[in-house]
Amino acid sequence: MKSTDEIIHQVFNAESVAVVGASADPSKYGYMTLDCIIKGGFRGRIYPVNPKTPEILGIKAYASLETLPETPDVAVILVPVTVVPHVLRDAGKKGIPTAVITTAGYREVGRADLQDELSAIATEENIRIIGPNIEGFIYMPNRLNAQFFPVLKNSGPLATISQSGSLTNGLAEWADRDGLGISACINLGNQADICEADFMEYLARDPHTRAMALYLEGVKDGRRFLSALQRVAPEKPVVILKAGRSSAGLKSVASHTASLAGGHELFSAACRQFGAFPVNDLATLYDYGKLLATLPVPKGNRLLVISSSGGIGVLAADEAESAGIALPDLPDGFVKEVESLNLSPLGSVANPMDLAAIWAEEFYEAACLADKYDVADVILINFGDPIRDGGETLIKLSKKIKAGIAVAYMGGSEDELRDRPRLNQAGIPVFSTPERAVRAIGAAMAFGKFSRTHSADLLPLPRVPENRDDTPSLIPEPEAVALLKTYNIDYPAHCFVKTVDDACTAADRIGYPLVLKVVSPDVPHKSDAGGVQVNLESEEDLRHAYTAIEQDVSAHLPEADIQGCLVCSQAAPGLELIVGAVTDPVFGPSVIVGMGGIYTEVLSDVSQRVAPVSLEEARNMIRELKGYPLLAGARGAAALDIDGLAHLITRVSDIVLDHPGITELDLNPVRIYQDRVTVLDARILDARLLKSK
Amino acid sequence: MKSTDEIIHQVFNAESVAVVGASADPSKYGYMTLDCIIKGGFRGRIYPVNPKTPEILGIKAYASLETLPETPDVAVILVPVTVVPHVLRDAGKKGIPTAVITTAGYREVGRADLQDELSAIATEENIRIIGPNIEGFIYMPNRLNAQFFPVLKNSGPLATISQSGSLTNGLAEWADRDGLGISACINLGNQADICEADFMEYLARDPHTRAMALYLEGVKDGRRFLSALQRVAPEKPVVILKAGRSSAGLKSVASHTASLAGGHELFSAACRQFGAFPVNDLATLYDYGKLLATLPVPKGNRLLVISSSGGIGVLAADEAESAGIALPDLPDGFVKEVESLNLSPLGSVANPMDLAAIWAEEFYEAACLADKYDVADVILINFGDPIRDGGETLIKLSKKIKAGIAVAYMGGSEDELRDRPRLNQAGIPVFSTPERAVRAIGAAMAFGKFSRTHSADLLPLPRVPENRDDTPSLIPEPEAVALLKTYNIDYPAHCFVKTVDDACTAADRIGYPLVLKVVSPDVPHKSDAGGVQVNLESEEDLRHAYTAIEQDVSAHLPEADIQGCLVCSQAAPGLELIVGAVTDPVFGPSVIVGMGGIYTEVLSDVSQRVAPVSLEEARNMIRELKGYPLLAGARGAAALDIDGLAHLITRVSDIVLDHPGITELDLNPVRIYQDRVTVLDARILDARLLKSK
Repeated sequence: MKSTDEIIHQVFNAESVAVVGASADPSKYGYMTLDCIIKGGFRGRIYPVNPKTPEILGIKAYASLETLPETPDVAVILVPVTVVPHVLRDAGKKGIPTAVITTAGYREVGRADLQDELSAIATEENIRIIGPNIEGFIYMPNRLNAQFFPVLKNSGPLATISQSGSLTNGLAEWADRDGLGISACINLGNQADICEADFMEYLARDPHTRAMALYLEGVKDGRRFLSALQRVAPEKPVVILKAGRSSAGLKSVASHTASLAGGHELFSAACRQFGAFPVNDLATLYDYGKLLATLPVPKGNRLLVISSSGGIGVLAADEAESAGIALPDLPDGFVKEVESLNLSPLGSVANPMDLAAIWAEEFYEAACLADKYDVADVILINFGDPIRDGGETLIKLSKKIKAGIAVAYMGGSEDELRDRPRLNQAGIPVFSTPERAVRAIGAAMAFGKFSRTHSADLLPLPRVPENRDDTPSLIPEPEAVALLKTYNIDYPAHCFVKTVDDACTAADRIGYPLVLKVVSPDVPHKSDAGGVQVNLESEEDLRHAYTAIEQDVSAHLPEADIQGCLVCSQAAPGLELIVGAVTDPVFGPSVIVGMGGIYTEVLSDVSQRVAPVSLEEARNMIRELKGYPLLAGARGAAALDIDGLAHLITRVSDIVLDHPGITELDLNPVRIYQDRVTVLDARILDARLLKSK
Repeated sequence: MKSTDEIIHQVFNAESVAVVGASADPSKYGYMTLDCIIKGGFRGRIYPVNPKTPEILGIKAYASLETLPETPDVAVILVPVTVVPHVLRDAGKKGIPTAVITTAGYREVGRADLQDELSAIATEENIRIIGPNIEGFIYMPNRLNAQFFPVLKNSGPLATISQSGSLTNGLAEWADRDGLGISACINLGNQADICEADFMEYLARDPHTRAMALYLEGVKDGRRFLSALQRVAPEKPVVILKAGRSSAGLKSVASHTASLAGGHELFSAACRQFGAFPVNDLATLYDYGKLLATLPVPKGNRLLVISSSGGIGVLAADEAESAGIALPDLPDGFVKEVESLNLSPLGSVANPMDLAAIWAEEFYEAACLADKYDVADVILINFGDPIRDGGETLIKLSKKIKAGIAVAYMGGSEDELRDRPRLNQAGIPVFSTPERAVRAIGAAMAFGKFSRTHSADLLPLPRVPENRDDTPSLIPEPEAVALLKTYNIDYPAHCFVKTVDDACTAADRIGYPLVLKVVSPDVPHKSDAGGVQVNLESEEDLRHAYTAIEQDVSAHLPEADIQGCLVCSQAAPGLELIVGAVTDPVFGPSVIVGMGGIYTEVLSDVSQRVAPVSLEEARNMIRELKGYPLLAGARGAAALDIDGLAHLITRVSDIVLDHPGITELDLNPVRIYQDRVTVLDARILDARLLKSK
């Protein structure tokens, strides 16, 4: 039994291809696909299959797969949906290892039954499926353009993987026109069998691919996808555009944690967590993909900008600051040497450097000196106006210096049009604007940092349990607090009492001031139901509060079973946060931290990760908060216990991984001080008994 | 004396051009410029001026301007900096109305003296200057390419105005290649005379220009620039990219208002205030310019997306939500009629609509039906994969329907490359990605709304007084409060007292609880110096507080002249804001509102405008705040007095306009309740006596 990797390898490097449903009618996909395979320059054997035509596009056609003179490495299927099962079975019988099913009309239009039928046949016949509902695939190292569109010319280092045929074609065409070229152009379609994770893992080992650009509408299996990312992303850059930002919305569930956790936000956070680059539009997907596929991995985040005119350099600098890229000051020795080159007096030797020149040689010399003085990890060359021999000179430069080179070229007329593909092909990415170049350089610097610093030890990614109750129940707070305590999470001194007299006894031990909270499985929102009393300074206060809670809660929720009250030591005032966990339907257990308080809730100042969350990742989560300066000590205030908060986050991660029954965990508020972090309220929903694990 | 408008008109529509410094050496700008004028197809008379060469590029050359057979409409000057004064004088003597001075080496390299010399000569000789330090200009309706680069082919509706020659060339070239074409390509350079505002006002009346794209590094005169915008922007869209975002930084001044006001932020806010579109990168500058120059002004913000494939439509929808564009639900009648067209069963009749088709006719029919049912103001057609006859069909469509049409085209191979310029030329803007198209459509919708709703009455834009003291002094708070009162601004009941006994008398009248604040011209930050005591509930508290203030302030600032104290009624707790005004060095008096509190200060949640601020504009400022939901009543809370806050903003605007001496005004905090807005502290810096006005 071949591995999926071997299967994909055989498809991509096929020596023979059957095209089932090949047609002589130029308006049919069966014609277009065959035409593309031929025009693309495939050097293997092509077998059109069509019972009605003896020859198509000059190639002998066969009536069925059975009649082929050999077993092809792959069958591309372009027949109507009703015919596909027969063809798939024939392909299996013939021993063809993989069927690329382009036909649509399955799960995407609500016909899961038809798709399941295909899967069943595939299992029976021991044949693998790519698709259905795709335009085909392209693998340029084998010059195999097995798609309706387009015919590509250039093989290059970027692979595209997409759930939309048009979009992957578009990306591939951009790369082709640009001179960059692509390695593989992969359509995912409905992923009845081979999925995005399989292709990513294959491409990670493909020597022709340096970076991947993905367009996704969803993932087949969240944890499988992340596992693949975890292995692939530190080695080869993965850029992902996920559709469906707008429909994400906030879930209308009760707890703060859950309402702040949005599917799309978690997707982006998970991508970043595992080293991929989530982007929000197609232009950025291509820009990042192009640069990451070409630029040598930057060793640091120092950028030198050298321009032919001032304006384009200033725009690069503006963008660099937004992107968090350092524009280092120039060492004196370097400045002196550049000045001794006798460049234009109208220029300025700074960073950004304005040469006020249109001579390629001057860029060459300035960049060589920058390399000599190790000024930067990446040099952005901005050409405004035509630069004669610019392309040739930069290619020479790239072979001479250590720093990576990227180019922004605009206003260069014919010189620009000629040099652009030449440079891209030589591994020097060219952009139309300085800002697009700078943003992509920022991604490359981030990739460099991630691949240098990420831990090689893969954290296990536990799956979402499927066998749990759909209606989780609220864990009584005393029990929830006991669980926190076993994970060394701080909670104020407290006692669960069932009578007011017991409350007074407990109070004497704990000490005033106190907070009194109702304990009832029927009161999910204690404050709203009058179930919380604070600032209790004396026994008199406490007795009064106890009675008030009993009365108020009964008034609000007459059916509520009031089991007693929790007497808690009242914590000192301080900054408040929310820490929690929620089970994402795609990615399973995820952890969230957010600034508390009404203003920050309006801003949704939260940070999410898929569990497990390491201590380092927890620190990253905290740093992402817009309110981070308040934790780090804004405006002269003392820094708060960020380390304690990071530990709390990892402990919450541990809890939900250790207790797969927990569907929601909401610590709100969490109060943070200079020396510690305390949870003031814990709300846990569990789909099974805690003990059942 | 000709108006500046007439001068620009004569330059652009010149019938004869002198090129002083024309050269036969192809490496010289004097050659390139002449070459561009010739290749560009200028139909007027060209006079190369060069004392050493009888003929250049086949055209008779003259030794000097004096020897020309006529007085040309414009002289383009390309001689070294030392020779420019002589040539300029000659040009004036010859009666040439305008010199376009390309030569660099003036104010931009610190030689203001040389530039002033030019200005002096120009005044003496009654000649106007464009430049210096530019690459020339292009005016396509006259086919006049008077620049080093490039030679453009297409005349079109977009004008570019730029302080960087390379950038305006680049934009012009994009428009040219795209088939869109440009009307004017204007270099500003150092703007010794004619400035960006002059060109904007000229182009507002130019029938060949429909939109302007500006790249600015600064403006010559802030209020002059805004006055021009105020007149131009409601008529013709103005898109502005201003360099220097990164260097803006926050000013290191004392008050909150001033420290929150950043130069670049105010520039962007002022652009929006007067109807222009500030953008942050070149790609957006071009995208907006292109679409605004072509699409009919949308009557509303309803967008219908029709795509050939699902993915590209989903991306358009994602971006539409981010851009605040409505994707209306489709009326039943429309859906039924589209379904009756017998389109692909794989598509979906929704918004975004996926036709799952590559036939142009289907787009045509669906769009016609959309127009019949008045579904949308703009229809975005997304072509993925090649669409045969797509261009022709959409041009036909655009003549038939009322809704504007924009196109995103990717993956369309040769069809795309052929149709793109054809569509742009026909006024149907084409973009490479759906997101770029949608963002630009959003700008057009905003332009439509602005030009429909803006008031035709121009608010006067007072200038910054130049004759005020550089070291403004702090107005004592009792006086500041008295000023607020004359503008009907609420401040708690209060009394200025000089002794503790007077304080007690005042307290009895005002009523407890009270706040006591030191009054001293030497204590700008009262709280930091121990000069504020709050929560005074009794005479005992008050007496104690008075003594404490005297002691604490003296301890902090031994030299401080303590004039007395302000006894104030203590306001009820509430949400806090900051309202203030500061004099911007470029735009003069500007007004700011921000959310108060330490968290929001970390976020710089502020909104700025140039004064005067109308009530409507003040409401816009408030709506821009990230914390706006808190004012409008987030999470079931009652709405606060937004109208009162808007009035306060306009009153602050009035104060700083009425008192040009005020350099800084800081109302912090301002407390907002459901029914009123109260200022709790007023800090005013005045460069002259308040009474001096």
